Amino acid sequence: MAKSKFEYVKTFEQDDSCLQNCWIVVRVDGKAFHKFADVHGFVKPNDLRALNLMNRAATLVMEEFRDICLAYGQSDEYSFVLRKDTIFYNRRASKLMTTINSLFTSAYVFNWTSYFGPIQLQYPPAFDGRVVLYPTDKNLRDYLSWRQADVHVNNLYNTAFWGLVLKKGLSNTQ
Amino acid sequence: MAKSKFEYVKTFEQDDSCLQNCWIVVRVDGKAFHKFADVHGFVKPNDLRALNLMNRAATLVMEEFRDICLAYGQSDEYSFVLRKDTIFYNRRASKLMTTINSLFTSAYVFNWTSYFGPIQLQYPPAFDGRVVLYPTDKNLRDYLSWRQADVHVNNLYNTAFWGLVLKKGLSNTQ
Amino acid sequence: MAKSKFEYVKTFEQDDSCLQNCWIVVRVDGKAFHKFADVHGFVKPNDLRALNLMNRAATLVMEEFRDICLAYGQSDEYSFVLRKDTIFYNRRASKLMTTINSLFTSAYVFNWTSYFGPIQLQYPPAFDGRVVLYPTDKNLRDYLSWRQADVHVNNLYNTAFWGLVLKKGLSNTQ
Amino acid sequence: MAKSKFEYVKTFEQDDSCLQNCWIVVRVDGKAFHKFADVHGFVKPNDLRALNLMNRAATLVMEEFRDICLAYGQSDEYSFVLRKDTIFYNRRASKLMTTINSLFTSAYVFNWTSYFGPIQLQYPPAFDGRVVLYPTDKNLRDYLSWRQADVHVNNLYNTAFWGLVLKKGLSNTQ
Repeated sequence: MAKSKFEYVKTFEQDDSCLQNCWIVVRVDGKAFHKFADVHGFVKPNDLRALNLMNRAATLVMEEFRDICLAYGQSDEYSFVLRKDTIFYNRRASKLMTTINSLFTSAYVFNWTSYFGPIQLQYPPAFDGRVVLYPTDKNLRDYLSWRQADVHVNNLYNTAFWGLVLKKGLSNTQ
Repeated sequence: MAKSKFEYVKTFEQDDSCLQNCWIVVRVDGKAFHKFADVHGFVKPNDLRALNLMNRAATLVMEEFRDICLAYGQSDEYSFVLRKDTIFYNRRASKLMTTINSLFTSAYVFNWTSYFGPIQLQYPPAFDGRVVLYPTDKNLRDYLSWRQADVHVNNLYNTAFWGLVLKKGLSNTQ
Repeated sequence: MAKSKFEYVKTFEQDDSCLQNCWIVVRVDGKAFHKFADVHGFVKPNDLRALNLMNRAATLVMEEFRDICLAYGQSDEYSFVLRKDTIFYNRRASKLMTTINSLFTSAYVFNWTSYFGPIQLQYPPAFDGRVVLYPTDKNLRDYLSWRQADVHVNNLYNTAFWGLVLKKGLSNTQ
Repeated sequence: MAKSKFEYVKTFEQDDSCLQNCWIVVRVDGKAFHKFADVHGFVKPNDLRALNLMNRAATLVMEEFRDICLAYGQSDEYSFVLRKDTIFYNRRASKLMTTINSLFTSAYVFNWTSYFGPIQLQYPPAFDGRVVLYPTDKNLRDYLSWRQADVHVNNLYNTAFWGLVLKKGLSNTQ
């Protein structure tokens, strides 16, 4: 069909394809999940239902996108690692991060009831996403170690914090 | 708290902030919505429930992100225009496109039942997202005209096509 | 001719074309010109020969690249403004900044003797280059005003400074 | 000193720092050197004076920028490889490619007479520059092999071509 005279605006889109031969990591991260956890009564420090729901959403993402070779999650974040030689979406960063992030979000809301049963979802949660490239296996390993160290430190803090709050009857600010 | 020796991997993230003083358009677009429409029995050529659900999701996005000054949708896509001078997320393209796209997706799934009632959502739908910059008001107007011309052409085609299929009893491929 | 099996490395080059419909400014800037000025005995605060040589180099750049519509220089820097709709080198930032910067440098060295006569060029000077995009005429005007304000402030300072040094017989650090 | 109200335009500059832990290759390439070679009577297929001048310019670049660990040249092009962990100019692509390219150009013009003696430089030559990133040693080796295969094929062709032209008295187009 004939192109409209407005078609030229398409040329304003810019190429953002990822450098070849690098690991492509897409990390999704819950937006304002402190509040989200409070509103929905997440058990502290770790809510098993919430973690399982995250895993379920991640599983669906991995089933859909076969070039994801590894995924690692904790708390309200998940990292997906795409093969170094993937040509999925021509390695366009925008397509990769938005599609993976969107499907993850969608699966999280879709499967909410399977994990939280009678607890109604009060409002639609959102995740942000980003792409980071790692040239070598060591860099990728260190990335995963970084996320793990992060969760460990947070877990330690949260476990101690909520131990004090819950068991000793202190208030959050005390 | 002490930084881990893996912290360095954070420096691999790259800056992708949008050029100043340009309109920032975030467009979300349904992934494989032909199939999605078929599976859920969307009325052809336009399913009012589906369009209203898109509008509901877009409304929630606009209520949440106050720097969006205009939105325009059609079929399975929606464009959100952010103010030229927005400093939301420091104009980082990744943050803007993934957060808006995620919230849109989330609201779409969250509100499904309000529009489709007894028709169960069969699987979680996904949207992709992108950022495009427009330096001038004219460019932005032409962008919106482009999307409108696009919908008009598609609508004309679909209306004629489904008119023939439905009213004359032709098959899809005929 | 047959492509070698190494040809694939070409795909590692990344697209860096400039956003459409923006003014493209290429600014070149002398590298370590304080030292360069000292070594070659530039008159303080302004050496007319050096400024004329800068202008000569800029003139040659403008004659060669017809899409440059405006140039503005001061001290050891020069800004070249390309038309908003230029398609020169497909608006690739790398090509634009390196080619303009290289020709400027080349013309500076080539024409040295015409301006400095018996004063030998002691070593090859270098310039860096950058590309900056400005969406509106006002932004471009403000860019030029910024460079002018900068030169005015520097000139005021240098004129006062060298006035004291030269006329009052103070040393540089006094 | 007080910042001018125009200072804001500086925020339009965009970050273009190179991905960490990748080899950074800066390649400079003569602009319209076919004509340049003709005008200055370069010997065909290879002019030793021209090649030595290229090497001289490259040597100066390597002496100046100590993070360049390897350089490879042929005909009118030269590739400079920077260490994977260089923090030179904060790995900013623009600074790296323009400064290296400018110094190379400058050294080429500056040293012309040492190699071409009485043959006057007719006009200032220019080079373009680019940055390409290679994540692994293998990619870098393949890049160098690619450039070498390229020069070999060109040399073979040129040697045969000029052999026919010079020895058999054929014209260029014959």
